[in-house]
Amino acid sequence: MSASLKIGLGIIGFGTVGQGVWKHLSASKRDMEVRMGVKIELIGVCVRDPKKKRAVSIPKTKITTNPHEIIDDPRVNIVCELVGGTTLARDITLHALRQGKVVISANKALICEHGAEVFDAVSKFGGQYFFEASVAGGIPIIKSLREGLVANRFSQIVGIINGTCNYLLTRMEKEGLPYETVLKDARRLGYVEADESLDLDGIDAYHKAVILAFLAHGKWVPRKNTLVEGIRAVTLEDIHRAHEFGYKIKHLAVIRRNFGKGLMTLGVYPALIPLDSVLARVDDVYNGISLTGDVVGTTILVGRGAGQDATASAVIGDIVDAIRTLKGASFKFLTKADLDSYTSMGRTVRMAKMDEINSRFYLRFDISDTHGVLAKIHQAFADEKISIARGIQYEHPGTGRGTVTFSTHPTTEAAMERALRRLKRIKTVLEAPLVLRIFNPEN
Amino acid sequence: MSASLKIGLGIIGFGTVGQGVWKHLSASKRDMEVRMGVKIELIGVCVRDPKKKRAVSIPKTKITTNPHEIIDDPRVNIVCELVGGTTLARDITLHALRQGKVVISANKALICEHGAEVFDAVSKFGGQYFFEASVAGGIPIIKSLREGLVANRFSQIVGIINGTCNYLLTRMEKEGLPYETVLKDARRLGYVEADESLDLDGIDAYHKAVILAFLAHGKWVPRKNTLVEGIRAVTLEDIHRAHEFGYKIKHLAVIRRNFGKGLMTLGVYPALIPLDSVLARVDDVYNGISLTGDVVGTTILVGRGAGQDATASAVIGDIVDAIRTLKGASFKFLTKADLDSYTSMGRTVRMAKMDEINSRFYLRFDISDTHGVLAKIHQAFADEKISIARGIQYEHPGTGRGTVTFSTHPTTEAAMERALRRLKRIKTVLEAPLVLRIFNPEN
Repeated sequence: MSASLKIGLGIIGFGTVGQGVWKHLSASKRDMEVRMGVKIELIGVCVRDPKKKRAVSIPKTKITTNPHEIIDDPRVNIVCELVGGTTLARDITLHALRQGKVVISANKALICEHGAEVFDAVSKFGGQYFFEASVAGGIPIIKSLREGLVANRFSQIVGIINGTCNYLLTRMEKEGLPYETVLKDARRLGYVEADESLDLDGIDAYHKAVILAFLAHGKWVPRKNTLVEGIRAVTLEDIHRAHEFGYKIKHLAVIRRNFGKGLMTLGVYPALIPLDSVLARVDDVYNGISLTGDVVGTTILVGRGAGQDATASAVIGDIVDAIRTLKGASFKFLTKADLDSYTSMGRTVRMAKMDEINSRFYLRFDISDTHGVLAKIHQAFADEKISIARGIQYEHPGTGRGTVTFSTHPTTEAAMERALRRLKRIKTVLEAPLVLRIFNPEN
Repeated sequence: MSASLKIGLGIIGFGTVGQGVWKHLSASKRDMEVRMGVKIELIGVCVRDPKKKRAVSIPKTKITTNPHEIIDDPRVNIVCELVGGTTLARDITLHALRQGKVVISANKALICEHGAEVFDAVSKFGGQYFFEASVAGGIPIIKSLREGLVANRFSQIVGIINGTCNYLLTRMEKEGLPYETVLKDARRLGYVEADESLDLDGIDAYHKAVILAFLAHGKWVPRKNTLVEGIRAVTLEDIHRAHEFGYKIKHLAVIRRNFGKGLMTLGVYPALIPLDSVLARVDDVYNGISLTGDVVGTTILVGRGAGQDATASAVIGDIVDAIRTLKGASFKFLTKADLDSYTSMGRTVRMAKMDEINSRFYLRFDISDTHGVLAKIHQAFADEKISIARGIQYEHPGTGRGTVTFSTHPTTEAAMERALRRLKRIKTVLEAPLVLRIFNPEN
């Protein structure tokens, strides 16, 4: 252990997150250096536009537009890939890993889509890859899964992991404002990604859920085996109705595993959770993740999911972990043995089929306000052996329309799908129902 | 890195926690061995009574009543000290550390009272000391403080860290049962320590708070500088009244630090927190800790705080961390540099005085139901410039007594102490008020 070990840091991408990392790291650098017996040096920063004004300033000599100048610099041990996206980011990552370097990333899309390739490169070339910031920003969820809670197998992981959806649903609920109004505010505040579909259609949450599922179960879950829904269909009406039923609507990622049957499911969708659950209290842009392990029971982590500072906190935590591994030949993650272990864990599980997934459901749809409609609807449910827990019907005077909302007792996804097909054939059912799942994330 | 590195494990104390550790470790051992490239062997278990029937059985040849047979065995690298208490546990711990071994502990009393000595022994002899299980069982709070959230300085740490108090308050609140009734149930369920004062008077929570304070601020806080209160004085009446004011009563450990002024406070007491805060949802035996850091903002961790399984989960997490350090010369905690860094951090802070601590307060006390009482009470507050936010007064017909409850606007602890002395001099104030603090743990 040398007291003067030099750690060379390169930052690729100097936007909000990159600047946050350097700002906060500069502030705590000296203390970290003393504590860990190293010298941390910023070798270079790669930007797209060197002329752009930035809140955090860097000496001109350290700025480049060519990422390879940084990655290939023999003084650089740690590369922070903070460019995002899956093309340039993939090149940079693989290029650095093939040199056995440490890469630190906040890039959930890259890991979701190319995680297998990236992890293989780590295991093959002896580098390291840290990605705490990729899921739930300031919450140390990846460290908790891989380290603190390592003794556990997780039967359920439920997360509010898209802050934008949570912000929108919270404001709709608390202020009674319609979706379109709060969405405008979210845009103005910069809470929505440039490609809005990532947030609003659940893609971002799906990316993060895939990472959690791999860490918990050793399986890269392909999109086709999952249910990915956003929040566009949720109305104020649904939020009020859920409240009456004793629930709150949250946009969730849900990873379930039945160890006895070797089945798992991964879904991302708005769902009804009990008003008195901890996750129901996780509001605004906050994230929250509930983990149910066979040893520890249910553990819940709540914190800021995104933003410059929360993400910087996670990246700096990873830098400290990286320095630890650079200081000696200690245990590393994603070695061949570590990866093989994930692979063999993943082999013991398959994605559940629709008739193997049970849930309670909430449905809301408009009907013609005429006699006999409800009889037909209830018959459709009865034919699929779906039992109704609560139902509320109300008319829209003068329109000839009414709205019905139901909550069901547990049934299978397959039975619900068949019931929905039956409802579609009823002429007086005027639209495809909004379908939300109901469950308790903290059983 | 040798694929056949042998890790010898010794367990001192084979009660609930010791048995839980071995039960769950046996289940996941093979997987851990493959992943980490080691061989884990249980060398011996030290018990007080070898004849006692235990749910988890161990071969007779591995059982001893002499801890030194285990500690001194050269094959033993990791000693799990699970005996509790501060005498034998201290001997065992120091003896093992002086041989440079790894000690893993769940012993909050030992760390609180002899932490400085234990940590010094680690730094001096090159061993390791892990103690995740000592605070909030299954919640990876120590790992989060030292690793995941390492980029932060914490201005506030608020924890529900005594499960017994939380269980009692939750049942009083939810079922409207008096303290004595739920305490009987808690005793029957084994939720109360043999020395009941540890739980009911806040000592256990104080032990844990001291550990968190050291990790966050590098200062071992002596008892005399703290406010340590249990929950014996809290009545159903207070719980109802708090509800009316918009709050829930929780038993909390509160560590605050003002970085500008270099001041800190550590207190353990029942307090009123907003009904809609996340910690207000942490019920029954669950623990919850809210950490407010300068980089990450507020992060909250919730989970089981005690019990065989949650504690075993933490100890096994520590064993895995210990194996990592045994595999190479990586960064270690509690090296001289690491400890020096805590010490110098601790030097920059002093405990705040009573007139430097601000709070809002809740007070409840009985009065003579005669004219002029309230005028005198309000004058006492006014003389100390304490402003009342809400007051409720009600009579107990036929007794000549009444009860008053007040909540105040922010004032200092010193002013409240003086006001309490003034109240004491009013003859129609029939008892010393119950005084609870009011604040939002998640600001």
